[in-house]
This record gives sequence, structure tokens and C-alpha cells, in this order.
Amino acid sequence: MNGADALISTLVANEVTACFANPGTSEMQFVAALDRNPQMRPVLCLFEGVATGAADGYGRMMGRPACTLLHLGPGYGNGLANLHNARRAFTPIVNVIGDHATYHRQYDAPLASDIAAIASANSIWVKSADSPDAVAGVAAEAVAASLTPPCGSASLILPADSAWLETTTEPAIAQRPVRSAPSGATVEAVARALKAAAKPVVLIGGQACSAEGLKQAARLQAAGVQVYADTFVARQPRGAGAFAPRRMQYFGEMALAELEGVDLMVFAGTTQPVAFFAYPNRPSVLVPEGAGTLSLADRAEDAVAALAALADALGAPREGPVQPLKLPDAAPTGPLSPQLAGLSIARHLPEGAIVCDDSVTSGGGVAVPAMTARPHEVLALTGGAIGAGLPLAVGAAVACPDRKVVSLNGDGAAMYTIQSLWTIARESLDVTAIVFANNTYRILNIEMMRTGAGQAGPQAAKLLELGDPAIDWVSLAKGLGVPAVRCATAEEFEAAFAAAMAQRGPMFIEAVI
Amino acid sequence: MNGADALISTLVANEVTACFANPGTSEMQFVAALDRNPQMRPVLCLFEGVATGAADGYGRMMGRPACTLLHLGPGYGNGLANLHNARRAFTPIVNVIGDHATYHRQYDAPLASDIAAIASANSIWVKSADSPDAVAGVAAEAVAASLTPPCGSASLILPADSAWLETTTEPAIAQRPVRSAPSGATVEAVARALKAAAKPVVLIGGQACSAEGLKQAARLQAAGVQVYADTFVARQPRGAGAFAPRRMQYFGEMALAELEGVDLMVFAGTTQPVAFFAYPNRPSVLVPEGAGTLSLADRAEDAVAALAALADALGAPREGPVQPLKLPDAAPTGPLSPQLAGLSIARHLPEGAIVCDDSVTSGGGVAVPAMTARPHEVLALTGGAIGAGLPLAVGAAVACPDRKVVSLNGDGAAMYTIQSLWTIARESLDVTAIVFANNTYRILNIEMMRTGAGQAGPQAAKLLELGDPAIDWVSLAKGLGVPAVRCATAEEFEAAFAAAMAQRGPMFIEAVI
Repeated sequence: MNGADALISTLVANEVTACFANPGTSEMQFVAALDRNPQMRPVLCLFEGVATGAADGYGRMMGRPACTLLHLGPGYGNGLANLHNARRAFTPIVNVIGDHATYHRQYDAPLASDIAAIASANSIWVKSADSPDAVAGVAAEAVAASLTPPCGSASLILPADSAWLETTTEPAIAQRPVRSAPSGATVEAVARALKAAAKPVVLIGGQACSAEGLKQAARLQAAGVQVYADTFVARQPRGAGAFAPRRMQYFGEMALAELEGVDLMVFAGTTQPVAFFAYPNRPSVLVPEGAGTLSLADRAEDAVAALAALADALGAPREGPVQPLKLPDAAPTGPLSPQLAGLSIARHLPEGAIVCDDSVTSGGGVAVPAMTARPHEVLALTGGAIGAGLPLAVGAAVACPDRKVVSLNGDGAAMYTIQSLWTIARESLDVTAIVFANNTYRILNIEMMRTGAGQAGPQAAKLLELGDPAIDWVSLAKGLGVPAVRCATAEEFEAAFAAAMAQRGPMFIEAVI
Repeated sequence: MNGADALISTLVANEVTACFANPGTSEMQFVAALDRNPQMRPVLCLFEGVATGAADGYGRMMGRPACTLLHLGPGYGNGLANLHNARRAFTPIVNVIGDHATYHRQYDAPLASDIAAIASANSIWVKSADSPDAVAGVAAEAVAASLTPPCGSASLILPADSAWLETTTEPAIAQRPVRSAPSGATVEAVARALKAAAKPVVLIGGQACSAEGLKQAARLQAAGVQVYADTFVARQPRGAGAFAPRRMQYFGEMALAELEGVDLMVFAGTTQPVAFFAYPNRPSVLVPEGAGTLSLADRAEDAVAALAALADALGAPREGPVQPLKLPDAAPTGPLSPQLAGLSIARHLPEGAIVCDDSVTSGGGVAVPAMTARPHEVLALTGGAIGAGLPLAVGAAVACPDRKVVSLNGDGAAMYTIQSLWTIARESLDVTAIVFANNTYRILNIEMMRTGAGQAGPQAAKLLELGDPAIDWVSLAKGLGVPAVRCATAEEFEAAFAAAMAQRGPMFIEAVI
């Protein structure tokens, strides 16, 4: 047994059984060891941003980490943006980053760089396993770190000689810290403050937006407390049978307008809401002036238990409001728009579907009718780094092979990690990928006005418009092995989406809007 | 005038006139300011790895920096791997990294991260311009840093409020440090050692591989000193009229076998050669045992002047050997291979062409016949992070619009930054992009054996093979707006490549090998 075997067997012993990989020479021992450790499923991604985003999607669905396999500093760098998103989703991930042999590091070979520095910003733990005997213990530490609430990505640097040298160490088992519930005193204090407030709200996020969290939050709503959810949530049930909290608006001044008169904000599984971006003369903190704030449970605590205790303390009913099942009656007609596509999606989305949402300005059109669609879950873009929608779908589909995965993407976003389609085809994943093609970074046209930069002139427009040349999405998808169809009308989209939901396997839809 | 204007006008005043960009909200002021500063050419890239690789290609050809425009930490992350390559090429680049407004940073908004940490590993200079009045000065510092020998990428963090607030500062002009020549004593010592050595070699790299550097190195060769060049050189003339030094072999044991008996290695514009990767029981340092080493000129010094002085000191002739013009007589025939493609490339490559080489295992087939092709230049993959060949071509074509650019890519490598094709189409760049499609990471099959990991079994093979599904490269290229043709025979490739060289504008060739 060599260090690579020790690593994989330890990962497997800790239920890390999927590896999203793009290896290079320094990772060859790990690759070879996969044949001796078949419980680990290797999934090849043609770009590391796909691998890390897939690990994010997998971790969100499983509640335990997949591993990535990345090639030194540049490989991690290629995966960095989706690890940023994973950091904001608090997703457990174990990154295995191959490195030069320990004795070779001193020579500053071409692929050498400061991996620890590059990984530091988005990792909750970084360590190098500098001998084969150290590998198993460090691997268990990495798993434990990734699962330590509020969870995150742990980065294990694996020098090539630590992988190829022999070791006799046994797989180590990771400690798995559990979330602690807030104290009774905290719950009582929050309950008292809520009763005393004229217009309180509870803002939930993270674990508080899980199925069980939503049930408890719904009880608060039934007791008369307005519940909001964070704008972007890592994983949240939606549709019939789920409680639908209001969502914090994306633009700060709209959020504050909606919250006008609120005198208390209570946070569960999240923290004080802030604007996604700053703008001249607009607010950064989205707490109404003069309103008090209280934390019921921070991101590392057991927000579900806290919400349940709070609901009990308030004498809330055992059950709160949930969404009805109400599908759009008629198939939409006319030129396609996100709104019309949303009607078809709501009509045909099957129960248990997983929607990976990187649709930017097209998302609202889908979200509204989906509120009363069949029960499903949504994985949102938590960190704002576009290019997550397709990789998340890869990971969610590997994690949940019996559930339909629908990936919603802006065209600008989809181009970031278009390589995902190849992995979807290769693994025959049950993913329907939709790209809303409006041939522009539409959000940036809006943001340009908001930042006070004015209307785009001819030079600025060159950096905002995608239509010259127009991307042929069907050609791209077919080139990567995924059957594809282009829909310019609501009728075409309705037919294509219904067909995709009625079958299994990869499908791509270009929604021309 | 706001801070964004101050930035662009300072960059322009310092001859930074091309911007490879993928902006987001925090960069909207910069984007808007482009309309007021039309001397800056904005080039949209659909992924930041394209932008940074293009800046590398531009900087290698121009000897002065382009700027990139990147969206916070994740945007820099997406561009990190090609900035790693640029670091190993010592290319001047100014990265403009948008950040949250200074007062917004404290709130840890979703896109916030430690940009300085992420950028540190591949930047020679990182600074944030934390007020609008600071922007011009910091921008000039960034240009100066990027041009300080041996040159590199400087990272300027631009908070949104520093961009949108007014300022009256004038553009600042950067100091441009020049390379200093080694002392006469150093040159004399090296000359004495060369005369005393039984079998000396001179290894050149970096600036020593420029056109003028090669001329001086050829004089050493004429004086009886064997000259070698680094395996991967940022920019090097090749073909008729150029001196062709031997190249350090990629695999260490082969390099050492070739250097057997060498008792002195002299370095000019480079340092001690080391193996690209470590392998069990193989050498890391590629200096023969017992051989002495001397530095004639380090990477920051004027290696050209040093080589000239050394040649004079050795009494070398005024001119050394150069390659003859010798084109393959006959068009190749039969099933296509890199070797046969190389014959066609050598036959039709026009004078002054720029070859951007990320062709990995297919590269040797092209390099051999190109040694006597019409005079051209080669930009190599200096840092080992695949995915540079297409972006380098974007930048080289923007820098040198009157020269034909040929981009050679392995299929695994090309998938990394396939978005480049769209920018080639949008800007109507005179680039012929070739992908050698062997449906595998062939280098990794070789490396697996060398690392002692053995033959790939079924699990390992899943991470090495690209053929399932086979990528339809013509479909991909057309989807991104580039005319494309698939060649499975040497006859087809000969016709396609000859036609591409005879016309201007974007062309894509899938070379099935």
C-alpha cells in the first residue's frame, strides 16, 4: 500500500466516495490507486471549475463531502471560483491537490507555486501530507474539517512522493462535530423580544432553509412573525408542500423599502443581510434604521432546533402554512420569454427534481410559477461567481441518480463552464440543461445604470454584449455529446421541456429570449 | 474625471492600450470610462482564463503590458492558471481587479474574498488603490512593477468607490527600469572557465532566446561552445535565418544522458535546469554530476549584452550558424499524424508567423520540420498549465495584426479555454487554431508509467481517456463562430492548412490523429 492507497481508503472509510477530477502527472499515483479502491467513483471533468462546482452540488445534496482531484496551484486556481461559491454555500468538500515531491519543491520547477496561499482564501483548512505515513491522519482531519459546522472546503496538499512511497497506516476515522443548539436563555430572549416588537421579522438561511428548518419557520409565520429567507440559499425545498418564506430582495433599496417599519430582525442560520454590491448613495446594510437585531442561531449552530424551540416558546401551532399544488392550466404560447418558459417548467417539473439555478436575470420568471409546482429543491448561486449552474447539476446528478436535475443558466454564465456538458454526456447523467440566450450580460446593463456609470457607449457596449457572433448553443451542446434543441417560441419550449422531463438522460435546451 | 478615468488615462499614458476583460458590477465604472478614453482597446473574453492568457500573448509580443479587467477574487481565480504561465514567461501584465467599495468590504458580501492572498502567488506586485486620488499613482506603480526585470504580472485592486468618486489627479508616468549588463569581471570569469572546461555548454533562456540573443549565442556555437535552450521558452525565433540551439529534453534522464561528460554549465537569461516533475529514482537537477555551474546573466540582467561580451571575449566570429530554408518537397499523404501535419505546417507557414504551442505530445511532430521553415516565432507553454495555446493566440493576434498566428493545441488542453474561439471570431483575428484530437490525455498515459504507477486499469482509464463521448470539434468551433474543418488524412490537412495560410481571418482545423 502506498500513500495514495492510504488516502483513498481513508476517504472511503469516511464515506467520501465520489471524486471529481482533472489530474496531471503529480496525481498519477492517486489515479492508479483508484483501481485498487473501487469504492471511490472517479468522474472526469475537462476543466477544474467543473470538478469543484460538481463537488459543491454533490456536497449540498449529500451533506457529506466528495473529493476533488486537482493539479497543483494552477489546477486549484481553475477550480477556485466554484470553491468560492461553495464557501458561501458552506458545502463540505475535500480538495486533494497534487504537488511536487517534497524534495523537488526546492527547485521551483515550472508548475511550482504557493498552493497554500492560493487555497487559503476559500478553504477552512489547508494542510500538506508531507510523508506517506502522514496521509491517512491528514485525510481524516480534512474530512473532519470539512464537516465542522458550518462546513466548508478543506484542502489537502498531496506531494507526489507521499503518494508513491509505501506506508502501512490504517485508514483513520474522522471526528464529526455536531451542531450545538443555542441555549434556552437565548431562545427565551428572542421570544421575549419578538413579543415586544411591533413589526419583527425572522431571517433564515443555510441550515434553517432545509426541509425541517422550513417546517419550523412556517410555525413562526403561523404565529404571526413574518419570515424571510436569504436571497441566495445553498439548498431549499420549493413548491407544493413547502413553506415559502419571502425572499430578501437582491437590490438593497428595494429590500429596505419592503422592510420599512420593521423594528426587530432575528437571524437563524444566517447573519445580518448586506447588499450584494455597494452603489453610490445606497445602503450597504439591509437592516432598517433603528431596528434591533438578534441572533437566534449562527451558521454553525443548530438553527432547526433553535427555530423549533422558538416556535414552542411562542406557542406557535404545530404546523405552519405550506404552498398548494397549483400548476399553470394551459401551455403558454407566443415568442419565448423567461416567464413563459417558467410556466412550462412549473407544469412539467417532476416531484423530487433538483433545480440548479445560475440563470441571473432570467431566474425570476421561473421562480414565481415554481412556487406552486410539484415539490422540488433549488440550489442557488451563493457566491456570485457565475458558472455554477452546470457543474452543480453534474454533482447533484451523481449524488441523486434517481432524481431529475434541471440546470438553469444565463448564456454569459453557461459559457464559463460549458465543459460540464461533456461530463453530463459521459456519465449519462439525468440532467436537462437550459440556457436562456439573450445575447447579453443583461444584469450588467442594469448594474451600469445603478452604479451611476450611465448608458453604455460603443466602447463599453463591447464588454456587455454577446451577440456578435451569436453563440450557436445547439452546436456547442452536440459537440460535447449532449442532444440539444433550440426553442424560440413558448410552444417549442413546452414540447421540448415536457419531452425532457418524460425521459431520462442528458438533454440541452437553448431558450431564445 | 473619476478614478476609473484616472486609471485608464494613466495606463494609456504608459502605453498600456489593450484591455482583455470580463467585467462585473464592480467594474462598471471602468467599462463606462472606456467611452471617454478610446485609446484603450477593450477585448471581451467569455472567461477570465482567456483574458489572462491573451494578456500573456500580447505582452510576450509587445514587450509591454496589456491590462486585464477581472471581477474580484473569483474573476482573478478564473484567470489564475494562465497568470501562472505568464509568471514563468516573465511577461509584463497589469491586472485590474475590481473590488467592493472600500466601506463595503467590512460586510463580507457574497463576492468578497481575500484578493491579495489569491493574487500573491503569481503577482510580483499587489496593491489596492483605496481612494480615487491614489489611483493614478498606483497605476503607474503597477506598470513600473510589471516592467521591472525580469518582468511579471502586477495586480492592482480597484475598489468600486475609488473608481466612481471624482479626482483631479493627472496621469502618472511609470519609471521603466532597464536591464543591467553583468560586469566585465563576470564575463571574463565565464570566458576563462569555458576555455578551461573540457566539455562546456551554455544554457540560454528568457531574453537570451530573443532574436538578438540567439545571434550572440550562435557566435558561441561558432566558437565551439555547445549551446542549449530551455525546454519551454516564452518567445523564440525559429526557422530559416535563426540560430537553432539544442533544446533541453523534457524528461530528466534523457537530458542528463545527452549532457553526459559535460563539465561546465553556464546560464544566460535562465537558471539551473530542473526536471518538470519528480519521479521515483530519477534526477531532479539536470546538471551532470560533478559539472560546475556559472551564471553569466540571471533572468533580470541583460543576457543579450552578456552573450555579446562573452562571444567577444572568446574571440568568436561575428556571426554564427543559422538555419537554412528547407521546406518539405512533397505534400504528405496517408492517415494524419502530428508528423505529417508538421510537414504541411512547415510547407505553408508564412514568414513572420507566430506559433502558439500548447500541443503537448503532438508538438514534436511539428517542431522538427519547422526548424527549416520560413522565419517565424514560437510562444511556448512556460508554466505547464494547459489551456494557454488559444488565449496566447488571441493576445498575439491583437498585438500583431499583420502577422499570421497559428495556435497548436492538444485536445485536452484546448478544452480548458475553448471560449477563446469566440473572441477570435468577434475580433476577426487572423488566427488558425489547430486541435490535435487523439481523444486522450496522452501525456498522462506516458507519465503514469514513469511515476511507477503502472498501466491504467478500468478506473484509472476513466480519468485519462477523452473519447467517450468523442468531442466534435468542428461543431464546437462553429458554435463559437469560427469556420472549421475536420481532417483525418494528410491530404485533407495539407489542403486545409494551405488554404488557411492563404487567407486572412479565423479558421479552425480539427486534426484527427
